[in-house]
Amino acid sequence: MRRALHILDTTLREGEQFAGAFFNLEQQIAIARMLDAFGVDFIEVPSPISAPRIREAIEHLCALGLRARIVTHVRCVEADVEAALATPVAGVNLFYGTSPELRSYSHGKRIERIIADAVPLIQRIRAAGRYVRFSAEDAFRSDLVDLLTVFDAVVEAGVERIGLPDSVGIATPRQVERIIRLCAERYPQVGIEFHGHNDSGCAIANTVAAYEAGADCLDVTVLGIGERNGIASLSGLVAQLYLHYPETLQQRDLRQLAPLDDYVAQCLHLPIPFNNPITAPYAFTHRAGVHTRAILNNPRAYEILNPADFGLERRVDLGSRFTGSHAVA
Amino acid sequence: MRRALHILDTTLREGEQFAGAFFNLEQQIAIARMLDAFGVDFIEVPSPISAPRIREAIEHLCALGLRARIVTHVRCVEADVEAALATPVAGVNLFYGTSPELRSYSHGKRIERIIADAVPLIQRIRAAGRYVRFSAEDAFRSDLVDLLTVFDAVVEAGVERIGLPDSVGIATPRQVERIIRLCAERYPQVGIEFHGHNDSGCAIANTVAAYEAGADCLDVTVLGIGERNGIASLSGLVAQLYLHYPETLQQRDLRQLAPLDDYVAQCLHLPIPFNNPITAPYAFTHRAGVHTRAILNNPRAYEILNPADFGLERRVDLGSRFTGSHAVA
Ligand SMILES: O=C(O)CCC(=O)C(=O)O
Ligand SMILES: O=C(O)CCC(=O)C(=O)O
Ligand SMILES: [Cu+2]
Ligand SMILES: [Cu+2]
Repeated sequence: MRRALHILDTTLREGEQFAGAFFNLEQQIAIARMLDAFGVDFIEVPSPISAPRIREAIEHLCALGLRARIVTHVRCVEADVEAALATPVAGVNLFYGTSPELRSYSHGKRIERIIADAVPLIQRIRAAGRYVRFSAEDAFRSDLVDLLTVFDAVVEAGVERIGLPDSVGIATPRQVERIIRLCAERYPQVGIEFHGHNDSGCAIANTVAAYEAGADCLDVTVLGIGERNGIASLSGLVAQLYLHYPETLQQRDLRQLAPLDDYVAQCLHLPIPFNNPITAPYAFTHRAGVHTRAILNNPRAYEILNPADFGLERRVDLGSRFTGSHAVA
Repeated sequence: MRRALHILDTTLREGEQFAGAFFNLEQQIAIARMLDAFGVDFIEVPSPISAPRIREAIEHLCALGLRARIVTHVRCVEADVEAALATPVAGVNLFYGTSPELRSYSHGKRIERIIADAVPLIQRIRAAGRYVRFSAEDAFRSDLVDLLTVFDAVVEAGVERIGLPDSVGIATPRQVERIIRLCAERYPQVGIEFHGHNDSGCAIANTVAAYEAGADCLDVTVLGIGERNGIASLSGLVAQLYLHYPETLQQRDLRQLAPLDDYVAQCLHLPIPFNNPITAPYAFTHRAGVHTRAILNNPRAYEILNPADFGLERRVDLGSRFTGSHAVA
């Protein structure tokens, strides 16, 4: 049986890693409230030890009494975990690079050391009565033996969910499916999270592939902002779920998507990218002659998402580039 | 054995269907020259019957003597085909909606009528010594029997390639793989083209899935512009091929990508979307503390594409949101 789908929004953590992104407290609160009204299950925030303003923001966000659980993204370092536990967060998302690239060029630690660092922290967080997840950063460039050795140990230590981030955006839907399925079969007792970067343009497809293979928690950000060219967008994930898994959206308010995307775009002084599903300015604008005629007959001709379900409207662009002649494009 | 991969760029046709897009002759020529310098195999243009300015543009583009073949996108209507053959285009890309939605709400024709319209036009184009392709518009909402009945007839009539467009952006990588593979096996004597819209965010993944299943011609536009929220972008496809099928890029000049994306963005008065692979303004900018440190050790830590291969440079954003404290994001 498939577990219930959890959506984790990391706009306030991964999103703030986007070049130039910075959300002040008022913006952080507004974003969290809208995410909660939409119905995300987790809101991820940075590590409180990273800056006093982050610690203060976490206190404020936790005090809002949202249904969404606030989880903080924390290195496997004792001081960082203690700082996290000193805040009222619902849980701690630990991460540690397991690929040869990150072990060589980032932290320089061997697999045994990763396990030795992670296990007591997981036990500590469980003992404090908080939710704990452990992610193998750069999972898709990690050696399978290394990856499973680390997961075996953290699952044994009592982690509640394991995470497989495609940290560099190299994975393909088939590879995601294969590795997630393997983990879902090996670790039936824990949840599985996926986080997909978009460097090669497949973040949304990879995220859906992870769900189909057994992941029960999917990471997104509003508009897909994040390091480099970002991760899967909330609107992209929603478009997929709407088409293929509508039951996963039953408890969510789709009319929050457009205000959320608009608000974050405004905070960043960026337009919503024209290629964004659902909320792009022209996502429901029809232009070619053969398209506009058919749409006027019945929108289903060229529309698979009903704009009204998102509080949006379709536009039919009759003043086309071919005005004055046959509209045959 | 896999056929050689052909890239078809349809910026001048599909791209001009993007809301607000309009390329004047100078821009059309500049875009075509850059696409040719990059090394696309086909440049698709609108139907010459659609407007005098289009017919004139086609004459100019054909006179440039590009290596890329100019093909025109034409309805299965005799007058349209004759107008196409009156220009010096290398070939004609026919299309006809085969899904129940398009048959009901767009053209109102039955399958037999589609075949009766298409077959003589295919023969006419072949007799004129031009390349001819036939696309089943909205292939992924078409009934499989209808789709194969139409393809059987057009292949028998001598078409050189069949096209399967996901015209409404509903397909998933697995579905694309299944249907393309089935067609590749059933029609080994012709080429297979795929064209993927991005309504649900999987255009690039679907395009790569089509290639893996046996398609030998993939449609893209510069930046992914097109009807509604567009189709697969050239940069997205290139990122995928670079990582997984580098042999398909051997004859192409990757340094043309950035100028192309910049130029088209400028023509449209739009920024390059921040989520675009390779050419987005921050695609090679690293921000989080753990990322920047590792990148300074070795860029491969968080980079799977080498910016230098595209004539671009990496940036390491040291003035992060956490300045003044531990950089631990
Ligand atoms: O902790 C995670 O699962 C994700 C961390 C991250 O942003 C990444 O690896 O890209
Ligand atoms: O002719 C084709 O293959 C593509 C036509 C088109 O733009 C579409 O169906 O989306
Ligand atoms: Cu990330
Ligand atoms: Cu199209």
